[in-house]
Amino acid sequence: MSSTLENTTRDQKFILKEYLDLNKILETERFKDGYSIDDVDSILINGLKVAKEVIDPGCKDSDEIGCKFQEGKVITPQSTKDAYFFINNNGYGGSNYDPDDESALPLSILSATYEYFLGANPSIGTLYLATPGSAGLIKDFGSEELKTAYLEKMYSGQWAGTMDLTEPNAGSDVGDSTTKAIPADEPGTYLIKGTKCFISGGEQDVTENIIHLVLARIEGAAPGTKGLSLFVVPKYLPDANGNPGAWNDINCVGIEHKMGLRGSPTCVISFGDESNCKGFLLGTPPGDDGIGSGMAQMFRMMNEERLMSGLAGLSIASSAYHNAVKYTSERVQGRATLNPKSGRVEIIKHEDIKRMLMFQKANTEAFRAMALQTYWWIDVEKWSSDPELVKQAKVFLEVNTPIVKAFCSDMSLQCISEAMQCYGGYGFTEEFSAAEQYRDARIYPIWEGTNFIQSMDLVGRKMTMKKGEVFAAWMKHITDFVDINKQAVGFEKEFEIFAVAINKYLESLKRLAGLFATPGMAQLYATRVLHATGKVWAAKVLLEMALIAQNKLNELGKDHYDYAFYAGKVASARFYVKNTMPDLTAFLELVINADTTVLEVEEDIFFV
Amino acid sequence: MSSTLENTTRDQKFILKEYLDLNKILETERFKDGYSIDDVDSILINGLKVAKEVIDPGCKDSDEIGCKFQEGKVITPQSTKDAYFFINNNGYGGSNYDPDDESALPLSILSATYEYFLGANPSIGTLYLATPGSAGLIKDFGSEELKTAYLEKMYSGQWAGTMDLTEPNAGSDVGDSTTKAIPADEPGTYLIKGTKCFISGGEQDVTENIIHLVLARIEGAAPGTKGLSLFVVPKYLPDANGNPGAWNDINCVGIEHKMGLRGSPTCVISFGDESNCKGFLLGTPPGDDGIGSGMAQMFRMMNEERLMSGLAGLSIASSAYHNAVKYTSERVQGRATLNPKSGRVEIIKHEDIKRMLMFQKANTEAFRAMALQTYWWIDVEKWSSDPELVKQAKVFLEVNTPIVKAFCSDMSLQCISEAMQCYGGYGFTEEFSAAEQYRDARIYPIWEGTNFIQSMDLVGRKMTMKKGEVFAAWMKHITDFVDINKQAVGFEKEFEIFAVAINKYLESLKRLAGLFATPGMAQLYATRVLHATGKVWAAKVLLEMALIAQNKLNELGKDHYDYAFYAGKVASARFYVKNTMPDLTAFLELVINADTTVLEVEEDIFFV
Repeated sequence: MSSTLENTTRDQKFILKEYLDLNKILETERFKDGYSIDDVDSILINGLKVAKEVIDPGCKDSDEIGCKFQEGKVITPQSTKDAYFFINNNGYGGSNYDPDDESALPLSILSATYEYFLGANPSIGTLYLATPGSAGLIKDFGSEELKTAYLEKMYSGQWAGTMDLTEPNAGSDVGDSTTKAIPADEPGTYLIKGTKCFISGGEQDVTENIIHLVLARIEGAAPGTKGLSLFVVPKYLPDANGNPGAWNDINCVGIEHKMGLRGSPTCVISFGDESNCKGFLLGTPPGDDGIGSGMAQMFRMMNEERLMSGLAGLSIASSAYHNAVKYTSERVQGRATLNPKSGRVEIIKHEDIKRMLMFQKANTEAFRAMALQTYWWIDVEKWSSDPELVKQAKVFLEVNTPIVKAFCSDMSLQCISEAMQCYGGYGFTEEFSAAEQYRDARIYPIWEGTNFIQSMDLVGRKMTMKKGEVFAAWMKHITDFVDINKQAVGFEKEFEIFAVAINKYLESLKRLAGLFATPGMAQLYATRVLHATGKVWAAKVLLEMALIAQNKLNELGKDHYDYAFYAGKVASARFYVKNTMPDLTAFLELVINADTTVLEVEEDIFFV
Repeated sequence: MSSTLENTTRDQKFILKEYLDLNKILETERFKDGYSIDDVDSILINGLKVAKEVIDPGCKDSDEIGCKFQEGKVITPQSTKDAYFFINNNGYGGSNYDPDDESALPLSILSATYEYFLGANPSIGTLYLATPGSAGLIKDFGSEELKTAYLEKMYSGQWAGTMDLTEPNAGSDVGDSTTKAIPADEPGTYLIKGTKCFISGGEQDVTENIIHLVLARIEGAAPGTKGLSLFVVPKYLPDANGNPGAWNDINCVGIEHKMGLRGSPTCVISFGDESNCKGFLLGTPPGDDGIGSGMAQMFRMMNEERLMSGLAGLSIASSAYHNAVKYTSERVQGRATLNPKSGRVEIIKHEDIKRMLMFQKANTEAFRAMALQTYWWIDVEKWSSDPELVKQAKVFLEVNTPIVKAFCSDMSLQCISEAMQCYGGYGFTEEFSAAEQYRDARIYPIWEGTNFIQSMDLVGRKMTMKKGEVFAAWMKHITDFVDINKQAVGFEKEFEIFAVAINKYLESLKRLAGLFATPGMAQLYATRVLHATGKVWAAKVLLEMALIAQNKLNELGKDHYDYAFYAGKVASARFYVKNTMPDLTAFLELVINADTTVLEVEEDIFFV
């Protein structure tokens, strides 16, 4: 989907090598013998090469051929299979999540290469990205037997893993799941019966086996989410040699015909039509209280999937942006405002086009920093031996996760729409990449918990966790940053605007705390709180990066080849702060208006 | 695309019968013997019937089969042809634009039925909507011979008309057109040579002839837009009996493969490959100054096409909204915040869903009022004998047109995206209508002059026209409305918020006038000025309608079947004012920040 993927490399290097303290990860026991900061460039270059040469060429197949459903089988294009195995066989797949794999990359670096991969062809992402999470659950909660049977084949990508939560009548409210698990003769083994839908990669012809991680309710367990347990349900039961053996009574009933991400098979899966589908419980069954550990286990995986959705939004928006830069720098149309007599110019010289590009540039750079920083915190949390840092990591992961998922995916749609607008009429044709990108990226605000669910996670859980201490600690990193830097030479105005915006944001939160005493108000304002929070955080990371960049600019001469890059980083921050921070003023006014119309109206007003 | 089209009827009736003074149109010489206000209901009901029974069933064909291009021919689905002829043969087509047709409907009423038609299947709109504009140009500027040859067949829909402006290298900057017109032997006849692209309906298999209105430059005429002339260029030259005769050397070279509006053939048309394509000049050729009248003539047609783009955005957004209401009132998921123990509820009861629906409701009602009011002004301008009112009409048409086109089409995309979000995962599937609507509606901000072109029309022409008098007169209608109604019982808060927003808006314009002295600043801020202006106007129409509705509520009891409708109108205004007016505060702050980053940066920052 992109001939311009390489144009993200410079910013990724900047974030990994100049913005994040990667040594905090690379010097841990886990990585100290593996990689050094000097390896970052070559890892990125190799990832880019894979994206361009192996993944990108199959993107049109994914979109145009897509997945076919024939007699219970899902057929994917050959290019999908090729890319999948190349990724897994060359160290870019699930092996990185295997704690025993010594060549594994830190997530902060791996995720940067995933920006290439998902920008090149987002459709196939679901095939290689869900497996490590599923494997991780078996690793953490499975019996030795399960680990032996599944882990190696899953981490290597030979077998794929999926998450099976949603049911036709239990989507956002997963607690209403009706899939049942009936104890079988062997301990830990259950018979699974039920239908799951919207299962990405639930059936495919890429891997020889598919391992479903299925949420189901053991007979007699409590209702709601708390009664759910998690089961390993393979398509084929491993035989005595560990190879796919007997079919496990799992049928793919159909796939969705989707607006985008057409290379990703979204399946309806029926378990146990013949009452002969075996599932292997992770952890222990519910006790007398009927409470299972399925949701808590699944959430381990969900958080990483949520982050990945934000990263995927970024990946498409970033590719769309760089493609738009390329197009607008080649397309000639009209005259320059400042010099109308000098003949026709490339449209990138027009102010409104530059504004749209600047919007995309600033936003995608913010998303990238937000996402990679969060992956960096995951690495810290998993591998650092510094207890203070690990404690901080927990704070950041709690708060960052819903914002990366929802803010980056929502705002990516705006970026991609602006990218399309840069092409004029050609943007609406499938001849250029913007059209597919506009279609593909629309899924990210919906799946892995809709963005409203993320917003409620932020407002209802993260902001109130430990009596607000967690969020206060998160927020303090932003206010401390402003206090320390508000006199930074050349950025006084930006920090002044940012400080005012933060105050308005905090004032809004204070007032909202009062409003939220009224039932329904938290739900009514949650989405907007999340967006406001995202904007504050985005401004912070852009200013942080701009300060680093300004120091470099002071060192480098104007003729230095890197001058434009650093000047661009400063421009992103200035543009974002001056053009986006006014939204926080609007947010405060919105909160002051405290409109309750939505709560007051009867639904019947919508029917006439 | 919609089983819920009828749900717009109540609001259309309200706008036509209670909001606009339709008698100002119906009592004109033109319509006084034709229609009375009592006919509105039956006209709407019949239009709805056509939309549901004739147009809607072909929507999936348009999207899924689309247009095929084979050996220079464009093949459309049979359902497209059926709908096209039904519309034209039953009084809903071009005949309404024929000044000699005594059964013609006023545009304000006809446009309301077009909301049904475009909501039912937007793709085929291009086939019946471009013809009357083309015919109007022949009527206004053509010789008697041309009128005799073309008008009857075009107004009846037997022949279709198209607009041919864009060329591969002349899109937004149409002045760079290279299509040539070379004088032929007969006076008024020229040989046309050149290629036009993005021609909606440029080739099709629906009508027996296609009449292209082509912008071309007569040899020796001035460069730029001012040297262009307009030609009638039929696919087949009318023979002695007025039937399609000799082929006129016009080839369709290809059609675009588009993200949406797939039933509308978007063609590349080559004129005069064999140097034998005849065009008939409208009006007079350029004099010694080389100045042609083509652009001025074309603009007559453009303004109505632009309005239609805004109406089309509304039509899709409105259909998407009503479909989302239907879906969310049937889909059961989760528990009510206020009553979690009472069992699962329809998701329309969830606050965030209601918020998204309210957003769509308020916005689409504003778009509808803005669009229909503007059509009402066209009717006034064309047919009223009240010179004062006609003078006002000219003011409103100048300012309203770019706003209806750009504001309604841009904001429609947000509405449709929110509609899709209401469905959760199902919204991303093509099983429901939101997906196609999300794809189709994306064209409206692009075509008929991109929304940036509309924004510059507002900022650079309409706001400065007659030293600002035109815009001042337009604005005065809003400030007068507030002055008169600010004490309206029960709306004091809304008017207070609105008055503050207007002041901030006006303060922003004052400051911008200063900023615009710097070249490039008008271009940089134009889009945002248009959006801010649209929001002020939208709040005004919603409040106007709410005041009328409140009077009705005071009359009707709670049990009256229309109570919910009027209560909904009041709710729309309250919601919009309290939730959207804060954006004007943000707009002022944005203007105060007066960011010039975009003007200052070198383009090279975008390449790294």
